[in-house]
Amino acid sequence: MKGYVPGEQPVAGAAEKFIKLNTNENPYQCSPKVKAAIGRVVQSGLQKYPDPLATAFRIRAAELLGVDPDWILCGNGSDDILTIVTRAFVGTSDMVRFANPSYLLYRTLAEIQGAACDIINYNADWSLPAEFGKPNDWIRLAFLANPNSPSGTMVPPSAVAELASTLPCPILVDEAYVDFADTNCLSLVAENDKIMVARTLSKSYALAGLRFGYLVAQPHVIRELRKVKDSYNCDALSIAGATAAIDDGQWLNETRGAIVATRERMTAALTELGFDAVPSQANFVWCPHASVPVEPIYQKLKQAGVLVRYMRYPDCGDGLRISVGTDEQVDACLALLKSMV
Amino acid sequence: MKGYVPGEQPVAGAAEKFIKLNTNENPYQCSPKVKAAIGRVVQSGLQKYPDPLATAFRIRAAELLGVDPDWILCGNGSDDILTIVTRAFVGTSDMVRFANPSYLLYRTLAEIQGAACDIINYNADWSLPAEFGKPNDWIRLAFLANPNSPSGTMVPPSAVAELASTLPCPILVDEAYVDFADTNCLSLVAENDKIMVARTLSKSYALAGLRFGYLVAQPHVIRELRKVKDSYNCDALSIAGATAAIDDGQWLNETRGAIVATRERMTAALTELGFDAVPSQANFVWCPHASVPVEPIYQKLKQAGVLVRYMRYPDCGDGLRISVGTDEQVDACLALLKSMV
Repeated sequence: MKGYVPGEQPVAGAAEKFIKLNTNENPYQCSPKVKAAIGRVVQSGLQKYPDPLATAFRIRAAELLGVDPDWILCGNGSDDILTIVTRAFVGTSDMVRFANPSYLLYRTLAEIQGAACDIINYNADWSLPAEFGKPNDWIRLAFLANPNSPSGTMVPPSAVAELASTLPCPILVDEAYVDFADTNCLSLVAENDKIMVARTLSKSYALAGLRFGYLVAQPHVIRELRKVKDSYNCDALSIAGATAAIDDGQWLNETRGAIVATRERMTAALTELGFDAVPSQANFVWCPHASVPVEPIYQKLKQAGVLVRYMRYPDCGDGLRISVGTDEQVDACLALLKSMV
Repeated sequence: MKGYVPGEQPVAGAAEKFIKLNTNENPYQCSPKVKAAIGRVVQSGLQKYPDPLATAFRIRAAELLGVDPDWILCGNGSDDILTIVTRAFVGTSDMVRFANPSYLLYRTLAEIQGAACDIINYNADWSLPAEFGKPNDWIRLAFLANPNSPSGTMVPPSAVAELASTLPCPILVDEAYVDFADTNCLSLVAENDKIMVARTLSKSYALAGLRFGYLVAQPHVIRELRKVKDSYNCDALSIAGATAAIDDGQWLNETRGAIVATRERMTAALTELGFDAVPSQANFVWCPHASVPVEPIYQKLKQAGVLVRYMRYPDCGDGLRISVGTDEQVDACLALLKSMV
């Protein structure tokens, strides 16, 4: 087994020399209210175990999402949520379904369980074939990143509901990037107990370093998942920081607005440079190029101090996935690209 | 499946009303250097992903432990380490061996994998029967809490080495409490690649709220375990805090000294009250009582505002596991006990 390989992280000290547009981090600092909340917990001491169920976060999130707190499970990043769900539903010789190309971790999680992967290729327009909802005897869990990575595209909630209605197993809709999108699948959770929605504070809340994510599912599902998670999977600082983050709606709106505006400008500029930039609902843009090989461009950008993610897929070719940075970072990247294509 | 049930945590607000001697937390605040290190990271921002391998911690820990950094795997608390090791070594229908009574999580981890439990009872003097090292065809992993909970006793490193030599599978020596003990199994790791040592910063470093633990094993073992862990399992704050914690040896020595001194005084007083207090190498004391039922004592202590852990085991009876608090906390508990037995 190969294991999942995360995006490059420059070693400490070298990080400042790079413009990092490769792991979809938020280019802005988190809300000052998050820093203050963490500071208060640090000052009060860390010798006690944290609340195993992150109740403070769940109460505030429930108000904002319009569900009850027992519909929410918190995790050490949404990767922890994906791990918990996989361990709860999937055993050796079972099958996990996911779309391709998408988040590579789904395959790793299936392989760790000793399960088979049922991989459904996206259509050329990044819609999902009906095959994704087709029942079979072995499938125990389906993953759908929505918005998807690397494409930044979304399957409409109505299509997700339809696929889920024919699936014989739960489907985890991975909404890591949904705060940058026009729509989401949250309301489907109440309609169908096979639908679960996972979210993270890493991207839209600029808290990748804090590790906090959560799942919304019906209470009888959450109850079973709690048995599988590590008892104290969220630390006291991340619970306080995450609660303060979701409480600061104004910060989210402003930051999201800035990133979406930069994304639209960036997409237009990349299209002008000849990339087949895919209109994005996330904080990155997927850029294949019909006539210019992109791997050398990735290398040259790196040499010039700009990290983007080069990705190659057997069935759909290669491309650059460029995260939306600040306007200055994006302009620096675009200027370099202009000199290369 | 029932799932692991952690010790009681009073809900926020009520916590201050209790003297908490039930989950083996350190009664003292962590080193001020830990708070300062966390504060620096918070100020510099949390929008970037943390170092997936917690390199800064591993470099400093390696110096202190006398190994190379690639002998160390970091986790979100040592529970994360136990989970990673179980997922790496144990599949459906395999077998996990552990001693009884001990940390209840070992059973839960085996059950989540769909594995069988091979439970070996401690001898009456808390030594381990040779049976613990006996090979069979199904066993894939053995757990040994050392010092053990609830007993606070240790199996000597020489005995651990001997049991490991006959075991056909890896053994994880769970040294969560080892900083309060006179000896440890660290040096065995280099002698036998089946021996792994897990540690946590929750107890001796007063950082239960931060979630940080680590494993020491031979590099070829660590390499495989890395494939199973969540990519970013340790957050940026815990990596910085944990590194500062292990760097402050003076704080550790002073705090450990205070806790061990209180423990010895507490053990003597409990013995005088008629408890069969077991001499402890940890930061708690296991207290069965030959003539007085202890469950009502647990209840009465709780009503009086002192939380201890009541534990009952089918094969070895019941008792109170009392964490070593500050001298004031322990005196309050002892005064109450005096009025009850």
